[in-house]
Amino acid sequence: MRSINFFKKKVFKINKLFPKFGIKNTFTVKDIKPLDTSQHDDLTFFDNIKYKNHASKTKASACITKKNLVEFLPKKTEKIIVDNVLLELAKVLKLVYPLADVDYPDLTVKKPNIKKYLGVKFSNNVLIGKNVKIGKNSYIGANTIIEHDVIIGSNCVIGSNSVIKNSVIGNNVIIQDSNKIGQKGFGFIPQKKVNIKFPHIGKVVIDDDVEIASGCTIDRGSIGDTIIGKNTYLDNQVHIAHNVKIGSNCMIAGQVGFAGSSTIGNNVSIGGQAGVSGHLIIGNNVKIGGGSGVVKDVSDNAVIMGYPAVPFREFLKKK
Amino acid sequence: MRSINFFKKKVFKINKLFPKFGIKNTFTVKDIKPLDTSQHDDLTFFDNIKYKNHASKTKASACITKKNLVEFLPKKTEKIIVDNVLLELAKVLKLVYPLADVDYPDLTVKKPNIKKYLGVKFSNNVLIGKNVKIGKNSYIGANTIIEHDVIIGSNCVIGSNSVIKNSVIGNNVIIQDSNKIGQKGFGFIPQKKVNIKFPHIGKVVIDDDVEIASGCTIDRGSIGDTIIGKNTYLDNQVHIAHNVKIGSNCMIAGQVGFAGSSTIGNNVSIGGQAGVSGHLIIGNNVKIGGGSGVVKDVSDNAVIMGYPAVPFREFLKKK
Amino acid sequence: MRSINFFKKKVFKINKLFPKFGIKNTFTVKDIKPLDTSQHDDLTFFDNIKYKNHASKTKASACITKKNLVEFLPKKTEKIIVDNVLLELAKVLKLVYPLADVDYPDLTVKKPNIKKYLGVKFSNNVLIGKNVKIGKNSYIGANTIIEHDVIIGSNCVIGSNSVIKNSVIGNNVIIQDSNKIGQKGFGFIPQKKVNIKFPHIGKVVIDDDVEIASGCTIDRGSIGDTIIGKNTYLDNQVHIAHNVKIGSNCMIAGQVGFAGSSTIGNNVSIGGQAGVSGHLIIGNNVKIGGGSGVVKDVSDNAVIMGYPAVPFREFLKKK
Repeated sequence: MRSINFFKKKVFKINKLFPKFGIKNTFTVKDIKPLDTSQHDDLTFFDNIKYKNHASKTKASACITKKNLVEFLPKKTEKIIVDNVLLELAKVLKLVYPLADVDYPDLTVKKPNIKKYLGVKFSNNVLIGKNVKIGKNSYIGANTIIEHDVIIGSNCVIGSNSVIKNSVIGNNVIIQDSNKIGQKGFGFIPQKKVNIKFPHIGKVVIDDDVEIASGCTIDRGSIGDTIIGKNTYLDNQVHIAHNVKIGSNCMIAGQVGFAGSSTIGNNVSIGGQAGVSGHLIIGNNVKIGGGSGVVKDVSDNAVIMGYPAVPFREFLKKK
Repeated sequence: MRSINFFKKKVFKINKLFPKFGIKNTFTVKDIKPLDTSQHDDLTFFDNIKYKNHASKTKASACITKKNLVEFLPKKTEKIIVDNVLLELAKVLKLVYPLADVDYPDLTVKKPNIKKYLGVKFSNNVLIGKNVKIGKNSYIGANTIIEHDVIIGSNCVIGSNSVIKNSVIGNNVIIQDSNKIGQKGFGFIPQKKVNIKFPHIGKVVIDDDVEIASGCTIDRGSIGDTIIGKNTYLDNQVHIAHNVKIGSNCMIAGQVGFAGSSTIGNNVSIGGQAGVSGHLIIGNNVKIGGGSGVVKDVSDNAVIMGYPAVPFREFLKKK
Repeated sequence: MRSINFFKKKVFKINKLFPKFGIKNTFTVKDIKPLDTSQHDDLTFFDNIKYKNHASKTKASACITKKNLVEFLPKKTEKIIVDNVLLELAKVLKLVYPLADVDYPDLTVKKPNIKKYLGVKFSNNVLIGKNVKIGKNSYIGANTIIEHDVIIGSNCVIGSNSVIKNSVIGNNVIIQDSNKIGQKGFGFIPQKKVNIKFPHIGKVVIDDDVEIASGCTIDRGSIGDTIIGKNTYLDNQVHIAHNVKIGSNCMIAGQVGFAGSSTIGNNVSIGGQAGVSGHLIIGNNVKIGGGSGVVKDVSDNAVIMGYPAVPFREFLKKK
């Protein structure tokens, strides 16, 4: 189910994508993926030394990177060496996925044809796009919009006034009112005149038994997916940026925010209004106090608090 | 007005609810209520020593509690002693109120019959559930959903794209756009496989002359109600969790969050992005600085700031 | 374009507005404006010594102020000296703009007449008020409400479930889902019985090439406008209070909040969950760390962090 593409894709050979790089290899690019989930004939990118372990094991056939990172990549990977990896990546993404840099609203959404959704209960004025799949015994609340190709499992309850796009949702998932799921994240290449918008070609994957309260925003992945693990619960007004991966059995209290690309373990609990910076790894069974600001990786079983967050004992000593 | 029940209720004798506890008393359970608002023939619960004063005066006929708290309860109260009070309570709630643990959207909402709402002005595509009452001279904005049995007073203005359920709203109340009011709070019994959802049988009560800006979330009470007092004003994106009680004449600035079950006095002002932890008592005339994290009770007239919040003079000394 | 009035206005002579002040000058009040944008025959107000430079150069013909501030105003300005400037201002605003103190929902919104909007692409159930103008090649998402007199430029994309009122939006602007733009801000005169609501007669001005993610709230100006500068990007759940002015090329991350009337320079970047207090001036090229609380003016090029925010080096030393 995770291989669905929500965005129209154009087919390119690798040397047509990078005509100035003298690439001899001429394979057709299958997809553009992160280092760790790339397969043969995929294009990937490597911009941050934090990901050197993923780089060394990547199966991608080509990788956009910079000079000082080349050494970490496998020998057989075609290296495309540039000064600004994300800028080059944005340009290539725009060629391959020309419609993923702006969230054009789905103009095809309309009242569902009940015959196509036997066993689904719709409230009034639900609007559904093309190719949406919804499992049996699921409920969809009034004024909720589900855009094209979204998949929702069985026994789900989706509340009212929500917008769901570019998402794959498991079974027994509860999503309350006014949630915004699957929209483009906050990614762009800053420019003084007009920023370059970074295409977001990923999706949101929500596993079974998740519960999401009201007023949350969950951005889809830019490259790769944003993932909420099994039996994880989110309270109201939680913000989850692109590419965040949250494990299973987590409890995320109200108004917590995650910057992009962080990975959260299993059984993690996070108190209200805490924030987690980007590109961090938070271990399993971690407890983060309310209002904390987490700015570095956290190992398994840690209990942390404060801004910046430190182990709970240190926090108490400081006060 | 506060005795309305928004959830279907089943009738049980107390000994049928707890068949293994050898209860000789066989009264029919009237309702399940908090310690302080229970009446004769009600069932209550007592899990946290913070509430021992309420416990000693409860009028409930039976109380789920644990061994070390029994001594605080009145003699005549039937004690149901368990290891995990909230787990036992959740099970009993699910028996008595089988539909309060998941927010199934109201499938009956539809365009209002204008004859039933003389003197009310509806914008386009307002959706109203069964038995909704709205007072004269009130306005309801476009795409707003008001679910079954909600009561709204006279001279109210409800904005657009809001969802209101399980709520009783007074007169002269202004609620701006995209508010989510009355949904289930963040309460469950964590389990490694599938959490047990805690039924929320309370409601939201909003007194006269309240103003609520846009994008707020106000969860209904779990047992008992969430209450916003007379002439209290909330700014945008405020989050109020289940069972919070806010007094009258308060000013709550943008993005403030309240964890569950705290009680806020009258004339309290709270600066933007401050957070108030759960189960606290904040006195009257308290001023809480913007961005503060309040983690303990606050006495009347205090001026506090910081994370954790301390009296303003101490805060200045630390800096 | 910035001279549009969204609110019904009544015409008064200055001496009729202030009958007890023995004003001899009897000009017709053209409008009520801030000190710095007032013109001849406008009424203004001056309540905070922070604005003394604006006061000394004001072109307004009359100014509500208090005794100790009179000296800063030009000689020719008619001074209306009161104890409570904002209370007096609120009363006068209510006379001149009788409908600007409560956000009555626009009852005229309906499905757009496609002939009036050639070149605009509407999704399902879009609701548009009277006199709305939308430029060519713009998209409007499902269930979005655009109230009377709003102006939207060309090549814009407005997402789903949004509410836009009292706003003027440039070209090439992207506004994602569930945004609330142009509603009344959090302004009132506190009273023990019923607060006096402060009329908000300003608007929201969004310049070209702006991108706003999902779930944001942008309040209109009270007197004067709330402004988002060219090519500025806002992430999800950002809260912008009345009269805030943000420069061009800024990057505002998720869940950031601005209290009223602050002015932010160009090229400013602000990390997630940071807060900016009211009436501050933040210079150009400033960087504010995530989770910071900014409580005083910040000069150009500063890099600050913490609560309260201090220069980055000081912040590191403290930890």
